[in-house]
Amino acid sequence: MFEAEMQAEKLSTVASACLALVNECKVRLDENGLSIQAVDAANVGMIDIAVPKEEFEQYEADEELIGLNLVRFGDVVGMASKDDTVALELNEQTRKLRVETGGLRYTLSLIDPDSIHQEPTVPDLEHIATYSLQASDIQRGVKAAGLVSDHLAFRASANPNHLAARAEGDTDDVRDILVRGTDGPEETEESLFSLDYMEAVVGELPDGEVTMRLGDDYPVKLDAPLFEDAELTYLVAPRIENE
Amino acid sequence: MFEAEMQAEKLSTVASACLALVNECKVRLDENGLSIQAVDAANVGMIDIAVPKEEFEQYEADEELIGLNLVRFGDVVGMASKDDTVALELNEQTRKLRVETGGLRYTLSLIDPDSIHQEPTVPDLEHIATYSLQASDIQRGVKAAGLVSDHLAFRASANPNHLAARAEGDTDDVRDILVRGTDGPEETEESLFSLDYMEAVVGELPDGEVTMRLGDDYPVKLDAPLFEDAELTYLVAPRIENE
Amino acid sequence: MFEAEMQAEKLSTVASACLALVNECKVRLDENGLSIQAVDAANVGMIDIAVPKEEFEQYEADEELIGLNLVRFGDVVGMASKDDTVALELNEQTRKLRVETGGLRYTLSLIDPDSIHQEPTVPDLEHIATYSLQASDIQRGVKAAGLVSDHLAFRASANPNHLAARAEGDTDDVRDILVRGTDGPEETEESLFSLDYMEAVVGELPDGEVTMRLGDDYPVKLDAPLFEDAELTYLVAPRIENE
Repeated sequence: MFEAEMQAEKLSTVASACLALVNECKVRLDENGLSIQAVDAANVGMIDIAVPKEEFEQYEADEELIGLNLVRFGDVVGMASKDDTVALELNEQTRKLRVETGGLRYTLSLIDPDSIHQEPTVPDLEHIATYSLQASDIQRGVKAAGLVSDHLAFRASANPNHLAARAEGDTDDVRDILVRGTDGPEETEESLFSLDYMEAVVGELPDGEVTMRLGDDYPVKLDAPLFEDAELTYLVAPRIENE
Repeated sequence: MFEAEMQAEKLSTVASACLALVNECKVRLDENGLSIQAVDAANVGMIDIAVPKEEFEQYEADEELIGLNLVRFGDVVGMASKDDTVALELNEQTRKLRVETGGLRYTLSLIDPDSIHQEPTVPDLEHIATYSLQASDIQRGVKAAGLVSDHLAFRASANPNHLAARAEGDTDDVRDILVRGTDGPEETEESLFSLDYMEAVVGELPDGEVTMRLGDDYPVKLDAPLFEDAELTYLVAPRIENE
Repeated sequence: MFEAEMQAEKLSTVASACLALVNECKVRLDENGLSIQAVDAANVGMIDIAVPKEEFEQYEADEELIGLNLVRFGDVVGMASKDDTVALELNEQTRKLRVETGGLRYTLSLIDPDSIHQEPTVPDLEHIATYSLQASDIQRGVKAAGLVSDHLAFRASANPNHLAARAEGDTDDVRDILVRGTDGPEETEESLFSLDYMEAVVGELPDGEVTMRLGDDYPVKLDAPLFEDAELTYLVAPRIENE
């Protein structure tokens, strides 16, 4: 069983964060809360989101795995005002999710979880450099890179220690120092990323502090707190040049 | 003769309400005010609007029937700020309407009224259920139905008594209770409408209370007060299923 | 050498004013400030803009002529908040312009000035009528003309003295009196202009007073003060009918 109530704005944020990478996803439910892990079709971007039951206004669930059409779910939650409460209720027989807010009731057909793109197992990652910075700074760096190229590098410089977004265009170059840190790498490290993926992902970062972990030709990991007790993680694989 | 002055915002509202269904219309003028009845080319949606001379800042007219290009008329009235006064003056010789606001004078060629789609005679309608509700509630119901389908039903339920917008999609369903009433039908009645028409029409309802009259496979009638003394009525024919 | 700092909003305004007519331009630098003269490819619209060094927060330059890609320059300046300072520095060896704001550094390749459309020598113009009016009034007149036509006339009427925008469509006409003046012509004079050019140019006029100079089948000249000490001039050639 699954019955829960949540503020519309929070549900929208969760759906929107996932929609940056995928249109449908598996949602794991258990007595402690809800979690989503999803990878885009090209296995480049991954989202990991965990929302404990404390974030809900009401929450009760047995262990369940449901397949969610995020586009439709986001549309119906978007019908509510942001402070409205949205009630969710799973019908286990029909495999439909009832979404209610005010007098509006939307009956959403769930997707067979087995038909959803399977996330690969993510190996333990050891990042060389870790930075705390504002989401708006990452967003500006990605936007600046987009002025000249369709990919960008994040470079963790050793000396002086700073993290920069860099992009080289046909004629023009951009470098945007995102943060000057103290916990940088011993040697300068750099990884190259697709602009499309980075734009999609950083656009969904909540305002405020983000933790960014980097390596050399290595996935970038972005961790941001969500609401009071939830956590959002994005992982984006690098583009390897000359391979 | 016809010479009148009206606040730009009011004139824009009248033009816009008509544009929901038609691009040109016949305007009947007489000493008491202005009225428009128009039906779209498919004879599905009808508008009836009556603006007594009290709504004008100045008004003088003999009996006249003019054909108005609503798109052009709306464009020129839209040039004025909403509190500006717009002056209208008919030149009976040239069949042109002079539209003036501030230093701006627009000379609008009128259309031969005989060339405009003729409204059918509307039979007296006897609706079974009548509801008073907010325009914003109808708008939300129509929008919600649009998430899953290109048509929607308005259902007047007998017991418990309420009015709902309903739509069935290929996989998902929507039901939005618009108002819980006391003046419902003895039996549940339902009529089906094209989403396109309902979107166009409810988008033009002024904020505030609307009277909605329904039947079973029957036209829906929407009445809303306009300004102080004017009245706006929309009538939309149902889609009959299985015929 | 060229090194300067300016408020982002001012730099954006200068770039945007030029972009109304051209995508690239020559910028003349000397110890007193910066100036731009540019003509569009069809030799119809010309911009003349002079920004003395007093408008800069810091300014140092030898005599230089640089070719600027205005689209890219506008994009990177647009990355800054309007109160941010943007630093410009010319590298004379590489012929690149370094544009910096905050941690963002954009390296902009300059264009060979000889490859840029050469402005024709503008003969001394003797205008017959001169009006002082608000930019918003010119903008409204141009917009009103666009309701019915793709060109518009500015007419300086002798008696009563006023300046009007006029346009004749297939069925409808527009006349918008822009200002009633005292310094009009002895006889009524009129020139016809392309709507596209006038829209582009008047959209960039800063809020406030503009000086408009007219003749008969003659270029229109628009002068507007820019910031404290800078000056913006647009010149648009007339369309000559029946030739």
